[in-house]
Amino acid sequence: MSGTSPVFVLLTDFGLADPYAGQLKAALFVHAPSVPILDLSHGVPPFAVPTGAFFLAASRRYYPKGAIFICVVDPGVGSFRDLVCITNANHTLLGPDNGLLALACRDMRREGPVSIHTLVPSSLPAANTFHGRDILAPIAASLASGSAIHAVGARPRKKIFTPPWAEPEHGSGEIICTVLHADRFGNCILNLPNEDELLLYPRLSLYIPKSGNSVALQEVTHYAELPASAAGILPGGQGFYEVAMANAPAAEHLDLAPGDACHIRGDLWGQV
Amino acid sequence: MSGTSPVFVLLTDFGLADPYAGQLKAALFVHAPSVPILDLSHGVPPFAVPTGAFFLAASRRYYPKGAIFICVVDPGVGSFRDLVCITNANHTLLGPDNGLLALACRDMRREGPVSIHTLVPSSLPAANTFHGRDILAPIAASLASGSAIHAVGARPRKKIFTPPWAEPEHGSGEIICTVLHADRFGNCILNLPNEDELLLYPRLSLYIPKSGNSVALQEVTHYAELPASAAGILPGGQGFYEVAMANAPAAEHLDLAPGDACHIRGDLWGQV
Amino acid sequence: MSGTSPVFVLLTDFGLADPYAGQLKAALFVHAPSVPILDLSHGVPPFAVPTGAFFLAASRRYYPKGAIFICVVDPGVGSFRDLVCITNANHTLLGPDNGLLALACRDMRREGPVSIHTLVPSSLPAANTFHGRDILAPIAASLASGSAIHAVGARPRKKIFTPPWAEPEHGSGEIICTVLHADRFGNCILNLPNEDELLLYPRLSLYIPKSGNSVALQEVTHYAELPASAAGILPGGQGFYEVAMANAPAAEHLDLAPGDACHIRGDLWGQV
Repeated sequence: MSGTSPVFVLLTDFGLADPYAGQLKAALFVHAPSVPILDLSHGVPPFAVPTGAFFLAASRRYYPKGAIFICVVDPGVGSFRDLVCITNANHTLLGPDNGLLALACRDMRREGPVSIHTLVPSSLPAANTFHGRDILAPIAASLASGSAIHAVGARPRKKIFTPPWAEPEHGSGEIICTVLHADRFGNCILNLPNEDELLLYPRLSLYIPKSGNSVALQEVTHYAELPASAAGILPGGQGFYEVAMANAPAAEHLDLAPGDACHIRGDLWGQV
Repeated sequence: MSGTSPVFVLLTDFGLADPYAGQLKAALFVHAPSVPILDLSHGVPPFAVPTGAFFLAASRRYYPKGAIFICVVDPGVGSFRDLVCITNANHTLLGPDNGLLALACRDMRREGPVSIHTLVPSSLPAANTFHGRDILAPIAASLASGSAIHAVGARPRKKIFTPPWAEPEHGSGEIICTVLHADRFGNCILNLPNEDELLLYPRLSLYIPKSGNSVALQEVTHYAELPASAAGILPGGQGFYEVAMANAPAAEHLDLAPGDACHIRGDLWGQV
Repeated sequence: MSGTSPVFVLLTDFGLADPYAGQLKAALFVHAPSVPILDLSHGVPPFAVPTGAFFLAASRRYYPKGAIFICVVDPGVGSFRDLVCITNANHTLLGPDNGLLALACRDMRREGPVSIHTLVPSSLPAANTFHGRDILAPIAASLASGSAIHAVGARPRKKIFTPPWAEPEHGSGEIICTVLHADRFGNCILNLPNEDELLLYPRLSLYIPKSGNSVALQEVTHYAELPASAAGILPGGQGFYEVAMANAPAAEHLDLAPGDACHIRGDLWGQV
């Protein structure tokens, strides 16, 4: 990372009503007092790996070359899954191999060669270890000070875990999507990148397996185009399609939450 | 801003459960890595312009000379309203011209000459532009590095939009106020500055048009003077009068929310 | 504090939906712009002194030598109680003498000599003074710049207030504990340090005076050992025993909140 100034970027589901985010920052500051710390968010819903993956994928591009992302959204703390390090010429990601880094890793591959390592803690972690504070923080500090990845106890690997929601399933006349995030306005961000094409049907509907409901879906380019109480789909400001309603929280009206499946379907009788 | 060190101060309604506040900080850091970033608050209720205006007016004085405030509380993102820059010898405010900067601007005029500019983005913003991150952050960074305001694409203007709630309406025997903020204790901060005189009546009442209710209002100087379950009014610690109840959330008991009107009335039969 | 770089650490119950935390940081920045500011947490529940005391005791060890903690959780603002300063070779704590600093102070005594001072503001504070911003921030800045404690208007004292919940009461066949914190997973952290021994009984129960209920309590070392819907007790990752349930919020199921008493009892018929 020569020629760049490192910065730590934090993404967790710790919330701010527990001392965990504070302790993570303290550990980073102790190990690397001169490296700035930027909060991406500590407000990922507890254990919501798809939401965390979306936050990271949508935000990584805004951080400078040399940024080191410390990511902890981890239903499996204490159980077995690797901690990994993903690096390319621009950024370094540290976190659990549970899908949290999957969307960002895919984008990083488009920027050039990516190297992936499994982090091997120098000593067996004690019971009740706090992985972010006790394992990732010292490794992040070593990397920020210029240590090579192999010097921090890491062994190379080829792949990371790719969760089923990493991309939508393009089927015959439908796209099966997963809700990654419901934002504060109730818009539902899908795992369908803005670059993807929607179905070439004049009319769309959204089928929601959880409830068995189906609603008409208008394809628009801005929220303002949606008529009152209609559901619509539009390319979102964060890089992914969003399901939205005019001045109403779609997540609540359609009963959609992060992790839920929804099917964008073409109307057969209206086929082009 | 010679002789001062700039600092960015952030005031938004983004909350912390979306990646927006993080992305705004990332954009500022990329453009101006050596300028400290201080959060005033990201907890303004969504679209609550009066509350944001109060936060800014109540807090600006505590920041050092050279501070640049990036303010985003904006129900009209994507629709038409100017972005403006307000500067005096002490501070610079950047934000939408929707009233968010109005209370602070009035205070700044008391400190000396104020200059106001409309920000003219160098290129037409794309669909789904995030104004804080994509327009205000680079302008703030240019100003922090010493650029003159006209160099960042700005044209001078005389006035900003002054919303109806910028000041109370002093009528005959009543003061018509707007609630700017309900704090975490349920105290209702009014748009009535502590410097203003209350009505010269021995007894006051509070009439709330929304509910049609009216309650007796005790004029006190400390919360502790209020008898149990009585409503009172006192000069608040944030520069504005507050409607409060003893150990009870006045906002809830009186059904008052930011933006609501309330009339402080003198009791005619008790007139001085 | 020679040879160390000071850092301010903030612990309050201000929340982030009011401008108070922002104003506290502004005051620190104005007085000491080169000293880093780290948030431990502003999410202590309003007035929850035991929870704040726990956050501080559980987190202090992760901060570097030279850290100055500004702590404000204070139901008694405006009423009479001292502001105090507690220092040892590692850390300085500033805050109200209401128990907030008690658990951390006890730990500091184990590290070596501790000096305690009452802070005597240079001028009588005005009505509606914001103690953190107006009194503690300038004192913290003076200490950070190397001023001696007696130079900031402080007089030595021997002791601080020790609240009844500072330690559990070890009785005959029972330990009477206080809940310090219910975390976001509903785990109840008790005022029983991990170093203490639990009762030497083969079976334990938890009696909750508030509700009059009693439940069987399994002694385990990891959450994963708990059978479904069973309540358990285990040494926690934050230095204190926790009452937990498998994949369920114990605080809600057992109706326990910070400040509540609970009795860990040995089963007499199962005595060792």
